[in-house]
Amino acid sequence: MAGYELFYWPGLPGRGEFVRLALEEAGVPYRDVAQGPKAEGPGLVAAGLSAAGIATPPFAPPYLKHGKRIIGQTAAILLYLGDRHGLAPKTEAGRLWTHQLQLTIADAVSEGHDTHHPIASRLYYEDQKPEAKRRAEDFCHHRMPKFLRWFETVLERNPKGSLHLVGARVTYADLSLFQLVSGLTYAFPKASRAALRKTPKVAALVQAIAARQRIAAYLASERRIPFNQYGIFRHYPELDL
Amino acid sequence: MAGYELFYWPGLPGRGEFVRLALEEAGVPYRDVAQGPKAEGPGLVAAGLSAAGIATPPFAPPYLKHGKRIIGQTAAILLYLGDRHGLAPKTEAGRLWTHQLQLTIADAVSEGHDTHHPIASRLYYEDQKPEAKRRAEDFCHHRMPKFLRWFETVLERNPKGSLHLVGARVTYADLSLFQLVSGLTYAFPKASRAALRKTPKVAALVQAIAARQRIAAYLASERRIPFNQYGIFRHYPELDL
Repeated sequence: MAGYELFYWPGLPGRGEFVRLALEEAGVPYRDVAQGPKAEGPGLVAAGLSAAGIATPPFAPPYLKHGKRIIGQTAAILLYLGDRHGLAPKTEAGRLWTHQLQLTIADAVSEGHDTHHPIASRLYYEDQKPEAKRRAEDFCHHRMPKFLRWFETVLERNPKGSLHLVGARVTYADLSLFQLVSGLTYAFPKASRAALRKTPKVAALVQAIAARQRIAAYLASERRIPFNQYGIFRHYPELDL
Repeated sequence: MAGYELFYWPGLPGRGEFVRLALEEAGVPYRDVAQGPKAEGPGLVAAGLSAAGIATPPFAPPYLKHGKRIIGQTAAILLYLGDRHGLAPKTEAGRLWTHQLQLTIADAVSEGHDTHHPIASRLYYEDQKPEAKRRAEDFCHHRMPKFLRWFETVLERNPKGSLHLVGARVTYADLSLFQLVSGLTYAFPKASRAALRKTPKVAALVQAIAARQRIAAYLASERRIPFNQYGIFRHYPELDL
């Protein structure tokens, strides 16, 4: 079968990064179609969204092409890759639990995004600063700690030990939690430090994922896009409470 | 195996309703644990969230108990039920596409909720009215029409005809789109009417779902919780633009 082609807006890690981490850990070749110095990157991504004749059109990036398949929605892409590359258990219960974790990570990602865009993604941050300040305050004091405490509980209760969210091996949920926490640490260095002090198992998991051979090589490569002010996780000091 | 037990906050349709519709269409018995006149309803739901010793604790309701399984996240519950009750195709591609549709419905539901709670779910609407007005304006003018147009496109391109989102039979995604559009119609009668005028296939699907035998019986029953001002979809005339 053909290789994987990932479509995501160039220049920011965004939701595409959750897919990249799975592909990198799996060690499979993939083409990150819109990345790099090519000026046509955004056009390539947009073309896939508006192309006529696709029976399963994606609503938004990221989307993955694999042969004739076009799969949108980050969590659905990971469900697909998890089955193929041993990044989720094979049992129905384990597979579903991994996916449930991923969907909760997705919720946390969306809420993280909305701290700087509580009114409209279409508008600039500068057009919604007072609202962003209020939303970020709630996120830093309530939502982020709540999400991280839940992941801590999940790690504590894993019957196979607290090194992974599910079972005794790495899953795409572990990789995604690494990315979520990395993003929160970039965006909210103070608030995330306070929250992570109370969730040491989450903090340890993040360290362990970063140290995995393939992930470490990826993070040191040019393929890894640094967090920046165009992505989902942005550092505005005034929002870090 | 034991029957299904659904846990969701009593007195509002909320995200629990997406699960109820699937169970009703499947025609399987289930216990809607927290509903009805029982004062202990909220406590029953909360108890499941905070119970110690559950290896797969849900982050938030709804969650479904089925024998020893506890499944959280609406889309994950539907993935589980879809497989068991013929509410999704059996092929991997069809199953994944149905799920992708559901995840996009979930995104629309969250955005619909955030129109009246753009700052914090923890606070009252009255504490975030100016922000809600701005967010609802964007939702009514941009996001809702964009979501509905996408579903219209999906219906137009379904190789098996535009009566269903996937293939030639009803799936949980059809049921969920019915609930999403019903909620939008309750919350934003003017804006949704304008959007639905441009998405006639979506409007027709909603009518067709409401007319299905089991769904019609359910909608006429006391089990159906009407939309109200405590749920995800709320009607504040000042937000309907």
